[in-house]
Amino acid sequence: MWSKGAIEDAQRYGTVDVPFSSKGQGYDRVPTQAEIGPLPEGTKYLHYTANNTVAGTEFQYQPDAGSAWLVCDMSSNFLSRPVNASKYDLIYAGAQKNAGPAGVTIVVIRRSLLAHCEADLPAMLRYGVHVENDSTYNTPPVFAIYMVEKIAAWLEDMGGLSAIEKRNVEKAGRVYAAIDSSSLFKGKAKEGSRSRMNITFTAGSEELDKKFVKEAEAASLSGLKGHRLLGGLRASVYNAQTDEAIDALVAFMREFENKNAQRGSN
Amino acid sequence: MWSKGAIEDAQRYGTVDVPFSSKGQGYDRVPTQAEIGPLPEGTKYLHYTANNTVAGTEFQYQPDAGSAWLVCDMSSNFLSRPVNASKYDLIYAGAQKNAGPAGVTIVVIRRSLLAHCEADLPAMLRYGVHVENDSTYNTPPVFAIYMVEKIAAWLEDMGGLSAIEKRNVEKAGRVYAAIDSSSLFKGKAKEGSRSRMNITFTAGSEELDKKFVKEAEAASLSGLKGHRLLGGLRASVYNAQTDEAIDALVAFMREFENKNAQRGSN
Repeated sequence: MWSKGAIEDAQRYGTVDVPFSSKGQGYDRVPTQAEIGPLPEGTKYLHYTANNTVAGTEFQYQPDAGSAWLVCDMSSNFLSRPVNASKYDLIYAGAQKNAGPAGVTIVVIRRSLLAHCEADLPAMLRYGVHVENDSTYNTPPVFAIYMVEKIAAWLEDMGGLSAIEKRNVEKAGRVYAAIDSSSLFKGKAKEGSRSRMNITFTAGSEELDKKFVKEAEAASLSGLKGHRLLGGLRASVYNAQTDEAIDALVAFMREFENKNAQRGSN
Repeated sequence: MWSKGAIEDAQRYGTVDVPFSSKGQGYDRVPTQAEIGPLPEGTKYLHYTANNTVAGTEFQYQPDAGSAWLVCDMSSNFLSRPVNASKYDLIYAGAQKNAGPAGVTIVVIRRSLLAHCEADLPAMLRYGVHVENDSTYNTPPVFAIYMVEKIAAWLEDMGGLSAIEKRNVEKAGRVYAAIDSSSLFKGKAKEGSRSRMNITFTAGSEELDKKFVKEAEAASLSGLKGHRLLGGLRASVYNAQTDEAIDALVAFMREFENKNAQRGSN
């Protein structure tokens, strides 16, 4: 969904090559480095979306772009794990998942790239304009920025990105374990591509998924309906998600399974 | 300042004609309708900035664009007075002065204009994309939008835009009266162009202006320093500004004048 937008906009300015898609398989995995393959000669940059909130997939490695620039949309896993930023040429991330309220985007750009900005873009879309003006070319979204600072301080207090990563691995791990040990639930993303942020799964049928969402809602577990594009179930476990919520979800899943798993089908 | 940005961006897409500027006079007034004159043949739209926060000028009438579209940047006086929106083809306004926190922009566009949007713009800048997606093509800045709703309800509770206009005329009027009845202070904007939002004035010299700002600050009256581009003094009296603040400012101005006006110069 996000790469699709990036592709459409990029096509206004040049030729776009899409080395990989798992669209035919419901976007169930990200490519391996081999599948990204050698980039076509003259490639300016390789763009990827680090985490797919809809399909529940996430890159667990950092692709190699060779001599091309590496550009990453980290909107939905930014600040959820350490990132070797020096390997990237451009990182951008809407704050709204782990960094703060919707309405501010964090951009980390290699200074040398500024000289290559398309001069023909409107001012608001030229990163150089924002750098020259210390990010105040427009009136900045002050409240959202203030909240990002608070979140960053919260992360530092708990031990930084390594600490939150450990917590996120543990939290997502408990939900995936509940799925994998179940005779009813099935994970949708392929192992190796499983997201730590968005866990997509199904109770086996559209009917059972609907029932799950409805009964979960009644048990005060909300937001478990899958994205309308792919259906099924989805548990989003961003930085702010609590251990208590994970415990409650896992307990509810067990209970639901006991009530709905067909005897003998195991 | 704002029209300058609009001119620069428009020049990427067509020929820009600037019918009027009071730049040589420190931007001390807006044009009359006669000074806008008949627009060059084939003009697509007439753009103007309704209120100049830096110079303290404001259009007190709605320009006639003839057969061209009328486009207005209302960022700094939106919701401060009634507007006959049906006369406009495109209104846009950053919320941060009277409508809500920085980080959301309100756009009112005549539906028939959507067909004329430059197809070659990136998606985020095509109004048609936002209309088609009910303003959720991007993740909307939810908190800022929520606050705009609160402000709109506050305005309705007090009697709507006619009521706030009356209040704004009265509030600004008291400060302008203090300037006009003074032997020390001088208003900077020409009568007829005076802004109800931003009142620009001077105590007569750079030295006295500095002294005014410093002593005002000590008396808990802040933000009275003029914009760095034009210097002098500036009182911003947006919707949220209280009667008590206006009273305090006017009283402080009288006191400052009594202490600093030269005897006999009156």
